[in-house]
Amino acid sequence: MRLVAFEQDGRAVLGAKVGNDVVALEEVVPGLPQDVNLALGALGLPGSAAELQAKLSGGTKRPLGSLKLLPVVPRPGKVICIGLNYVEHAKEGNNPIPDYPAVFFRGATSLAAPGEALLRPKASEKFDYEAELVIVIGQRARHLTEANALSCVAGYTCMNEGSIRDYQRKSTQWTMGKNFDRTGGLGPEIVTPDEIPQGPNALRITSRINGQVMQDSNTSDMIFSVPRILAILTEAMTLEPGDIIATGTPSGVGYPRKPPVFMKAGDTAEIEIEGIGILSNPVQDEA
Amino acid sequence: MRLVAFEQDGRAVLGAKVGNDVVALEEVVPGLPQDVNLALGALGLPGSAAELQAKLSGGTKRPLGSLKLLPVVPRPGKVICIGLNYVEHAKEGNNPIPDYPAVFFRGATSLAAPGEALLRPKASEKFDYEAELVIVIGQRARHLTEANALSCVAGYTCMNEGSIRDYQRKSTQWTMGKNFDRTGGLGPEIVTPDEIPQGPNALRITSRINGQVMQDSNTSDMIFSVPRILAILTEAMTLEPGDIIATGTPSGVGYPRKPPVFMKAGDTAEIEIEGIGILSNPVQDEA
Repeated sequence: MRLVAFEQDGRAVLGAKVGNDVVALEEVVPGLPQDVNLALGALGLPGSAAELQAKLSGGTKRPLGSLKLLPVVPRPGKVICIGLNYVEHAKEGNNPIPDYPAVFFRGATSLAAPGEALLRPKASEKFDYEAELVIVIGQRARHLTEANALSCVAGYTCMNEGSIRDYQRKSTQWTMGKNFDRTGGLGPEIVTPDEIPQGPNALRITSRINGQVMQDSNTSDMIFSVPRILAILTEAMTLEPGDIIATGTPSGVGYPRKPPVFMKAGDTAEIEIEGIGILSNPVQDEA
Repeated sequence: MRLVAFEQDGRAVLGAKVGNDVVALEEVVPGLPQDVNLALGALGLPGSAAELQAKLSGGTKRPLGSLKLLPVVPRPGKVICIGLNYVEHAKEGNNPIPDYPAVFFRGATSLAAPGEALLRPKASEKFDYEAELVIVIGQRARHLTEANALSCVAGYTCMNEGSIRDYQRKSTQWTMGKNFDRTGGLGPEIVTPDEIPQGPNALRITSRINGQVMQDSNTSDMIFSVPRILAILTEAMTLEPGDIIATGTPSGVGYPRKPPVFMKAGDTAEIEIEGIGILSNPVQDEA
């Protein structure tokens, strides 16, 4: 099943794709909470994806193109990001290979919907792209082991974990450079685990700027795999439905290139992950 | 006005104190959103605190002691924290005096209510206290100047920005050590700016463990003042109603002491800020 979030009557609604149409899940799942995070928890994912799929025929079909899409999780409880999780990316920035993940958070205000313009801020021209696989949490979880970790996963999606490089390095903590408004694209859809039989660590991951391939790697090259990330995070914190985890980016980002490549108004940035889809965002200057 | 959040019928309700009683604001403000963050936005704070105060006589008085209190903002959109914002604290950890604030985020899962036990996790014994003044956002804001920054502030509260020191240093990013479940006390109440005529940067700030003073400073010693923090943050990101900002801790924390002092089961941790109140939390081991 493939889920999107869209705006209707001023609120976010969780929908499932049926071909090129979308069915609002609250129409076909009685009692589903209106809040998207709570709805992700109540759906019982990942277990019940096939069962849910069968219910979709009872709902109104809205053409995907007619909807105002939102980031696939519009207001995540936590947006957890893993830094330096691919060997070649750590090397390209002259960073040591980590033995424990570098973790930072983004806020919902930093997210952009599929197709929505990413904003290059007034404050900086150093707006870099980062292709990342994102884990969407469906079940509350603490103290997971690598063996049972995937039981909490509602699905996967793509992120362009857009980063303002000079602000990322204004202090030892990267958070400022990772939290400019609408710099991180999230989508195009949440893909439930049953649609990715090879698992989350065997997926080609690519970014393109104006059609030119900038990053081309595979999630098998992660230093900390998806189950390992979930086990490490939940040693400390409870993951909740609607939390999302961006799992780090492979080599090929813009800042270490000679000359550096940054996103600017008029560009189109695409993140493609095998089995998940293509997240495409134009870039414009902050007004 | 002094605001608290409490649980009723399974949801969080924003209330205002009348002596030792609490009035639910939704009872006396017609159309107030049920969501605490949205309610903080709809109240029109900081401007209307006196006007609101006058309405409280129309509501049902619930004895404070009878309520199940929640962190004063139970589900903040963002929990933004400033590191190393007092000169002597930077020095005690052998850190240089910053020329730009170190910023990291916590998640709502790391918060504890006034009076609720803070949890020393299974993973570590290095559970340190940090007294901090917290800004509670009431009005959506971007690109604030120092001159107009306080216009977005709904009020102030206290935080014990509890930190697991070894996890804080497992990578360059402090986020893991700042996000163990229920390690950060928040409260006891949101105090509106009209009750703090001297402003937020002239307040004595103290922490005590089992009655012994551990930190004793003044918010006038901040490197980045409250208006400056708001201007710096909003160069990058939109602040939203219900976002909170912990403004850093003064010297006297536990880890650099000889021998180090950490919180353990049976301790009582108190944070007191002049004009705001005393946040008191017992400490217990994670179950």
